Amino acid sequence: MPSAGGRINLPDIQAKKLNNSFKLTHVGITNVKKPVNVQRPERVITLNVTMDVFVDLPATQKGSHMSRHVEVINAIVDESVRKPVQSLEVLSEEIATKLLERHEYASKSEVNLSSDYFLEKQLPSGVKCLENYKLLAMAKAVRGQKINTKMIGVEVVGMNACPCAMETIREFLFHDHPKCKNELKDVPMITHNQRNISTLMIEVPSNYLIEADDLIAIVEDSMSSPTFEILKRADEGKVVYQAHTKPRFVEDVVREILLHILKKYKDLPDDVVVTVRSESEESIHKHNAFAERKTTLGELRE
Amino acid sequence: MPSAGGRINLPDIQAKKLNNSFKLTHVGITNVKKPVNVQRPERVITLNVTMDVFVDLPATQKGSHMSRHVEVINAIVDESVRKPVQSLEVLSEEIATKLLERHEYASKSEVNLSSDYFLEKQLPSGVKCLENYKLLAMAKAVRGQKINTKMIGVEVVGMNACPCAMETIREFLFHDHPKCKNELKDVPMITHNQRNISTLMIEVPSNYLIEADDLIAIVEDSMSSPTFEILKRADEGKVVYQAHTKPRFVEDVVREILLHILKKYKDLPDDVVVTVRSESEESIHKHNAFAERKTTLGELRE
Amino acid sequence: MPSAGGRINLPDIQAKKLNNSFKLTHVGITNVKKPVNVQRPERVITLNVTMDVFVDLPATQKGSHMSRHVEVINAIVDESVRKPVQSLEVLSEEIATKLLERHEYASKSEVNLSSDYFLEKQLPSGVKCLENYKLLAMAKAVRGQKINTKMIGVEVVGMNACPCAMETIREFLFHDHPKCKNELKDVPMITHNQRNISTLMIEVPSNYLIEADDLIAIVEDSMSSPTFEILKRADEGKVVYQAHTKPRFVEDVVREILLHILKKYKDLPDDVVVTVRSESEESIHKHNAFAERKTTLGELRE
Amino acid sequence: MPSAGGRINLPDIQAKKLNNSFKLTHVGITNVKKPVNVQRPERVITLNVTMDVFVDLPATQKGSHMSRHVEVINAIVDESVRKPVQSLEVLSEEIATKLLERHEYASKSEVNLSSDYFLEKQLPSGVKCLENYKLLAMAKAVRGQKINTKMIGVEVVGMNACPCAMETIREFLFHDHPKCKNELKDVPMITHNQRNISTLMIEVPSNYLIEADDLIAIVEDSMSSPTFEILKRADEGKVVYQAHTKPRFVEDVVREILLHILKKYKDLPDDVVVTVRSESEESIHKHNAFAERKTTLGELRE
Repeated sequence: MPSAGGRINLPDIQAKKLNNSFKLTHVGITNVKKPVNVQRPERVITLNVTMDVFVDLPATQKGSHMSRHVEVINAIVDESVRKPVQSLEVLSEEIATKLLERHEYASKSEVNLSSDYFLEKQLPSGVKCLENYKLLAMAKAVRGQKINTKMIGVEVVGMNACPCAMETIREFLFHDHPKCKNELKDVPMITHNQRNISTLMIEVPSNYLIEADDLIAIVEDSMSSPTFEILKRADEGKVVYQAHTKPRFVEDVVREILLHILKKYKDLPDDVVVTVRSESEESIHKHNAFAERKTTLGELRE
Repeated sequence: MPSAGGRINLPDIQAKKLNNSFKLTHVGITNVKKPVNVQRPERVITLNVTMDVFVDLPATQKGSHMSRHVEVINAIVDESVRKPVQSLEVLSEEIATKLLERHEYASKSEVNLSSDYFLEKQLPSGVKCLENYKLLAMAKAVRGQKINTKMIGVEVVGMNACPCAMETIREFLFHDHPKCKNELKDVPMITHNQRNISTLMIEVPSNYLIEADDLIAIVEDSMSSPTFEILKRADEGKVVYQAHTKPRFVEDVVREILLHILKKYKDLPDDVVVTVRSESEESIHKHNAFAERKTTLGELRE
Repeated sequence: MPSAGGRINLPDIQAKKLNNSFKLTHVGITNVKKPVNVQRPERVITLNVTMDVFVDLPATQKGSHMSRHVEVINAIVDESVRKPVQSLEVLSEEIATKLLERHEYASKSEVNLSSDYFLEKQLPSGVKCLENYKLLAMAKAVRGQKINTKMIGVEVVGMNACPCAMETIREFLFHDHPKCKNELKDVPMITHNQRNISTLMIEVPSNYLIEADDLIAIVEDSMSSPTFEILKRADEGKVVYQAHTKPRFVEDVVREILLHILKKYKDLPDDVVVTVRSESEESIHKHNAFAERKTTLGELRE
Repeated sequence: MPSAGGRINLPDIQAKKLNNSFKLTHVGITNVKKPVNVQRPERVITLNVTMDVFVDLPATQKGSHMSRHVEVINAIVDESVRKPVQSLEVLSEEIATKLLERHEYASKSEVNLSSDYFLEKQLPSGVKCLENYKLLAMAKAVRGQKINTKMIGVEVVGMNACPCAMETIREFLFHDHPKCKNELKDVPMITHNQRNISTLMIEVPSNYLIEADDLIAIVEDSMSSPTFEILKRADEGKVVYQAHTKPRFVEDVVREILLHILKKYKDLPDDVVVTVRSESEESIHKHNAFAERKTTLGELRE
């Protein structure tokens, strides 16, 4: 039987015409993993990218040709071995464009990418360590529209110290030790602090370039503190103390990021979409604290 | 110090007034788990509900009072011990309403709930077994609007058999064994089949009642087959064979569910939102196949 | 075809005799979910239990009859509706025993159970809230041995404050503010703190009863602090401050639990197995800190 | 304060001497992610490795110096930029050895590594695609012992077709269509098939080399079929049909792997440890089927 297979005219079930059916908003494949070569300023790096890719499907077509999704991805990934892609959002746009070419029945495509990413950070003591982040990218293409939508983003693990408990404990401490009140009035106090995971995604208009490393810097600066793999005693003390001089609610982290974005990207147009999210894995609760803003630069500039 | 705590006037950091700040779309807590008593037609059951609850936050207010979110939840959960809630979507609406009462600065609230759920199913042989599902509910309240939005939903694990590979293999088999072509022309053939996870959420207008058990029945009927915990040999053969008489792409599952919804809920208004999603953990690939439709009953009825 | 099914003599593939094969250590099913009624001192509660159940398989037998695993589980779960099980470890032992009865070719069986669990806790202010824990149970049965092995356990989410950073910051603070050195010499200092997940499992000999609520109390007392769903400002201040008066490494948590176990269970025999594990989701790192001890009461008593 | 930090003599809390304490079996850090350059026959590849590393801790020492764990990892990872490591198991052994050097109080160390990995596979049609696997490695070092233990392993996603349902359906079909009985007596029948995840780990004695690619080939050959990212219609038909000519229980997969291991590694000594595990995400059930054997080559050779 296997030898016969090639000579038989096989039925194209997906292309079957349907009546009385419904169009579908998203049809595609999820959780595809591929290594992609990406050009960084100084060198080529390999990112292990997890991909979800979709097209829409008209009511008249029974199925999407799922193998074409992977063929599009593979052609681009193969090409990246010879010519590294410029960035993850350019990769996502390229896939979205090619999906529309291959799925001739589709009017829209959407691509979501994520990948582990490493960046060297320096500690107060001068020690360097390689920190782990997540890169995110998204692109949408619409048939007949020259301009695609694409976004670049980062997910950053950092540290948040709570401003509320700190002021409560300040009251407690000065009540019990009034002698130290004046001496310590500007000194940070004990509070609960915890691991915080914050995400920033921003639309990248055509002909603009947004550097993921800048987004990481913005998010880390908006938390109470970045986190570090290696912390010898003196560095650990400084990082923890510094974090307590910048106590932050998740609400504060989101707003700080928005403020940074406004300052950093003054030349980006008003219709650029920005999504910011911050979640703290509260050390005093079993649940998480969460804050989010979905907006445009125009709205923020009002 | 602890004893002193109560007598000190503690600062309300969250209520701090801000200038030059940004409003936030969602502020709240995620991953709260609570046992809730729910009234079913025949008896009271206890659901272990995982909750994400949010309000929006105006630019002028530094923080949301996170503890009020839990207080709202707890008051309702406590009350359910005495008087079981009617359903998960009624619970979500009640929490959304109370969140707006307690967060006087918020203009909107949103609640997402999910819970394990068990339902007795009967096999061809008459054997009964308790199958596991997930119940979903969502509610949104807007200050000043009398009517809230609420949705009920289910996540169902079932089985999908691929229509495409089946027809390819039919061609192979009849090519190699032409004698059986006529005899077996209506008999299903070998194909790949796999675990499928499908989700259906539907808006519940005020004064309407949608039964989650009906949604589970709709989703299971739209797959190649439901799955069962216990399958003795004859039942197993029948379930597997039956599944192959109903081969389904993820696209087919979503469209079948939409068709069932149209037939079952003829009296629901046109603006009712419906979301249907189907994901197959493909046995022949390492990635998943995915299809989705977000729509309204009105759009579907066109 | 379906109607014919029942009258056909179906082949028992699993029972096929094999030569030149290998025995298997564990054969069974994982991730089975069932609601089980459990008798607590004051009332009957329903636990949603996730189950992994196994038997061994001799080299001569092709397959384990997987459906028998579920039949054993279902019979016991059904029975619990009429007569609630005494505890999760008794349930695990009962399943392990019945598995050996039904799988006549097996010489050993093993059962692992876990379940969400809720317990009411009281705050310094008197406010009560329902906290979420995980119950664990394990049982092993060996054919021909009268006595089975069974363990009960708990997984607890709490809070850990780091002793090391606290002392570093104390040095910093007293160096910069020598006036406060004497006044604040016994006062806890700023440090990093974080969510900690600790697990305790202990063997339950026949005729002994170990109460899961006691294990939860032991684990919570061994951390810097338990966590609470609701914390109004004064309670929050007290909980955070108290946690800082008990700074703990993960190593300390494990040792504290071991010490508590020795004191609490003086009458348990020396061969009782104890496993203790503590993992802190470090707020200053992206990785976790981890400590573990697997031992017997006899070893601890040396 | 920050400037002062460096000049202060900071306390070493971890080194504190304890009485009446307990030794700990494992103390370390989990979920550390690092990119590591690894030498493959044809080229250098970068693996994103997730690491869990531990030492034991004597009763007399309060804490392990957690930062030393990361320093050991970082020194080796940095070195791999200049001189790529030979393999993941050599990396794990190197870390285990260095951990004992840096933690002078420890008598044992243990390292567990895992990493995504890609390998090119060819389809019947000649199409090539890059498939995703997981590499695993483990090493243990004991102070005073010249020889460490190290293991290499792979986790492979493939496809399993059930032998039991196939024979049941064969009986059904031949009962209803006796004419085809002789013609189709050697042809595979419909059955349920599903995604299967199998793991193989094997000890690598000093001076032996075991190639991870060989382990992947062994596991894929032991399943009903490997899986492929791209399958055009004819390839899809062949892969699915071929899988049905090799129906396999999870029990069969584990035994096939053991058989392959015995044949392939005839020169490995008897005390080499082997662990094999196979889990099928059953398409007809909501739970998984599972089989495992932990053994030595000596036991298998009996």
